[in-house]
Amino acid sequence: MTAFKLSTLAEQFGLEVKGEPGHEINGLATLERASSATLSFLANPNYLPQLQETRAGAVIVSAEHAGRFQGNKLISEDPYLSWARIADFLHPVPVVAAGIDTSASVAEDCSIDPSASIGPHVSIAAGCTIGARVVIGPGCVIEAGVHIAEDSRLVAKVFIGRDCRLGERTLVHPGAVIGADGFGLAFDQDRWIKVPQLGRVVIGPDCEIGANTTIDRGAIEDTVLEEDVRLDNQVQIAHNVHIGAHTAIAGCVGIAGSTRIGRYCMIAGASGIGGHLTIVDRVVITAMSTVLESIHEPGHYGSGIPARPQRQWQRVLVRLTQLETWARRLARIEKHAGH
Amino acid sequence: MTAFKLSTLAEQFGLEVKGEPGHEINGLATLERASSATLSFLANPNYLPQLQETRAGAVIVSAEHAGRFQGNKLISEDPYLSWARIADFLHPVPVVAAGIDTSASVAEDCSIDPSASIGPHVSIAAGCTIGARVVIGPGCVIEAGVHIAEDSRLVAKVFIGRDCRLGERTLVHPGAVIGADGFGLAFDQDRWIKVPQLGRVVIGPDCEIGANTTIDRGAIEDTVLEEDVRLDNQVQIAHNVHIGAHTAIAGCVGIAGSTRIGRYCMIAGASGIGGHLTIVDRVVITAMSTVLESIHEPGHYGSGIPARPQRQWQRVLVRLTQLETWARRLARIEKHAGH
Amino acid sequence: MTAFKLSTLAEQFGLEVKGEPGHEINGLATLERASSATLSFLANPNYLPQLQETRAGAVIVSAEHAGRFQGNKLISEDPYLSWARIADFLHPVPVVAAGIDTSASVAEDCSIDPSASIGPHVSIAAGCTIGARVVIGPGCVIEAGVHIAEDSRLVAKVFIGRDCRLGERTLVHPGAVIGADGFGLAFDQDRWIKVPQLGRVVIGPDCEIGANTTIDRGAIEDTVLEEDVRLDNQVQIAHNVHIGAHTAIAGCVGIAGSTRIGRYCMIAGASGIGGHLTIVDRVVITAMSTVLESIHEPGHYGSGIPARPQRQWQRVLVRLTQLETWARRLARIEKHAGH
Repeated sequence: MTAFKLSTLAEQFGLEVKGEPGHEINGLATLERASSATLSFLANPNYLPQLQETRAGAVIVSAEHAGRFQGNKLISEDPYLSWARIADFLHPVPVVAAGIDTSASVAEDCSIDPSASIGPHVSIAAGCTIGARVVIGPGCVIEAGVHIAEDSRLVAKVFIGRDCRLGERTLVHPGAVIGADGFGLAFDQDRWIKVPQLGRVVIGPDCEIGANTTIDRGAIEDTVLEEDVRLDNQVQIAHNVHIGAHTAIAGCVGIAGSTRIGRYCMIAGASGIGGHLTIVDRVVITAMSTVLESIHEPGHYGSGIPARPQRQWQRVLVRLTQLETWARRLARIEKHAGH
Repeated sequence: MTAFKLSTLAEQFGLEVKGEPGHEINGLATLERASSATLSFLANPNYLPQLQETRAGAVIVSAEHAGRFQGNKLISEDPYLSWARIADFLHPVPVVAAGIDTSASVAEDCSIDPSASIGPHVSIAAGCTIGARVVIGPGCVIEAGVHIAEDSRLVAKVFIGRDCRLGERTLVHPGAVIGADGFGLAFDQDRWIKVPQLGRVVIGPDCEIGANTTIDRGAIEDTVLEEDVRLDNQVQIAHNVHIGAHTAIAGCVGIAGSTRIGRYCMIAGASGIGGHLTIVDRVVITAMSTVLESIHEPGHYGSGIPARPQRQWQRVLVRLTQLETWARRLARIEKHAGH
Repeated sequence: MTAFKLSTLAEQFGLEVKGEPGHEINGLATLERASSATLSFLANPNYLPQLQETRAGAVIVSAEHAGRFQGNKLISEDPYLSWARIADFLHPVPVVAAGIDTSASVAEDCSIDPSASIGPHVSIAAGCTIGARVVIGPGCVIEAGVHIAEDSRLVAKVFIGRDCRLGERTLVHPGAVIGADGFGLAFDQDRWIKVPQLGRVVIGPDCEIGANTTIDRGAIEDTVLEEDVRLDNQVQIAHNVHIGAHTAIAGCVGIAGSTRIGRYCMIAGASGIGGHLTIVDRVVITAMSTVLESIHEPGHYGSGIPARPQRQWQRVLVRLTQLETWARRLARIEKHAGH
């Protein structure tokens, strides 16, 4: 990596240098592993002890914590955000050469922008439109009629079902499946019959879809992700779900069919959200919670139970089975006591 | 889409027309978005308000709810089932051209029915049998000795491990992994050794396997899905599990090894079922429940906890840790009161 | 399969024969399905009734249970371990022919050992090193700069991100995604920006990674699995997690970012572990538990709730909402009683 002076980075990213403006850094590191040629940052106060011991050539830090470090500093109102910007500047996403790999199978009537890159062993069926600078990595499968807007990137082994749409600058990680059939079954006397899934998946611009995440196509209308929706790995989004802009969903979350999630929501890992619900804007769901009713007010909601030593937990479980008799015992005591 | 008269649909699907039998519909839509040329349906009474406002050209509706809509109606005993059948008729699965794509790698000694379709970048190893009208979509990997019965369809990027078997008309969605090794480990002094996984996965006819779902091969005997088993996305089925006919399992469910699930069971999303259990026929497991003992009676079972505002929930968690002392306090009060 | 005398197996695997040393077995089976030519085993005492009825030609059994079976026996201190070794001997992993399939896309500057096997439709980008006897199955995608040590095997459709490293004899099942970006987001006024993920995934020797499991690359430093770590299917490992040697993690577990798991831990299915925690060596987490605090002592921990009939469970849920008022009622009773 090229070396940069702290003054250069400060100017470019609107930060204040404290210390030696001419100090050069040529890499990024954690506080723990930094050397005099690397830049680090402090965002989470839990790492304050490491700040005091770091050998970093410079640290991005808030004014509040600046006094805790004697070395060179870049003062930021939001050190994590500054870190993200500087890291992106120093480690830009590698440009992929334009063109269609000779091993790719692309239907003749597709419209592939000449600046797009189609990798090895990719399949693109009839009638697709692939925008400028789109990168479709190795092993992706794109069914017929798909539209992928400019600057989007499918890293590898991504599946996009027929007629689905991805907005600009959307990033899809390996193994994601977008637009498989929703789980629609009708019971016919003594067996299931499949309900055709006729909708699409429509994903807005600036979304990110994690590895092995699945987003089912709508049953009749579309499954929709508005702009800047961020999904981690192994998330399951059922048919006809609608997710509002700027909502972030952590790993292993499942959302059942036809539920509507608001804007600026945050859903922590491994939570489950039932079907046909409405969650308003700015709701936070804590880890491993089960949402079974609509949520009408912003705020934090949860039902996760922190693990404890198994013997203690076994006793709690026993007590749970006794609550019904406790209710009667309490009532009887109160009656006898004349409450 | 071709236009159809209501009388034609009514006759074909055994429904009664109320209204104008000659009215033509040329598409399907939800109540909310329907127009005079589209057909809609009412199955879930929650949507009754939409029934009264819909502009649909006709609605499939039960006799019970027929009075709530003034327009053209197709009266059905089970509107959702009628909808499924009509949707399937109007939107049949597209026929895929027979033949083997030039980019596919197929071992010479395989038996591929001439009416089967083998897509781009598919790998089929030695000794496989692929039945009539089977569709193996782009990027699928079929190991040696696999047998896929007629009219089955692997949409794309499906893996089928050696010697596994799929019945007729079984549909497998992208990213599903059928027949990877089960998680079999023996502890050898200070480290794990792998227990060879010698069984197969045997899947009956008319099953559906969701996107990124995994079904492990048996350790010694087979992992079995009987006929008409329906698995949603991201379901995990461990080695030697046996799932009875007509059982439906929603997204993100995990079933541990050697468990036997009965027929006509329904397991809601994100539930976990322990190993070496037996669940009888017609058991319903509610969402995000943990099944750790065998279930011997049909009925509904659960242990999921609905999320509530985080402050309320934190208080419940505190109270849970106090139950042990409450037990003693209750007993002491009763003793003092001479109960 | 070739037939083997019991005396031959006993000698090779350090077991004692009781019965007819010259009896020949030519296959392996469960107690329930065994015939006189097959070998079976008893490890789980739950299967003792089957031991008494089995028709197995011989059974691997502990000295403790040997008296419960009248037929031929191989006496072992650890029947499951002996079974694993004998099964591995009788059913060795098939050798895959060395060489690069003509349909594979391999960058010119890679170093591929001549004894390695590169399957159909594999993509290997620039600068990769593939060791001796490595098998890279059909449809795998290897990004630039990856190093895979000797005797490792990627079964099929595995993704390995840029610069990641796999140790010797590591086995990766289909659909696993190793080295996708971690879920790193910084909030910029009214929208998310992506935090570049600059670390790698570094996996030790003798690991096993389950089907559709995801392991994210580190944000700055690496995500690390030490030696002999065993992950089941659909496990999610977030960025900068560190997993100690000999730890086994069952299906559907999620571990959030920067958490450090010790050696010889066992994490049961569908549990979730929060971020930035430390779990010491030899911790066991029971099924469907939520770990939200560091664990400093070895032992068993949990918070999973066994399902019960739904009506009973509904009553428990009602009682949970009453605990707050119960606390007041208990205190009032005690006050009145003058405790």
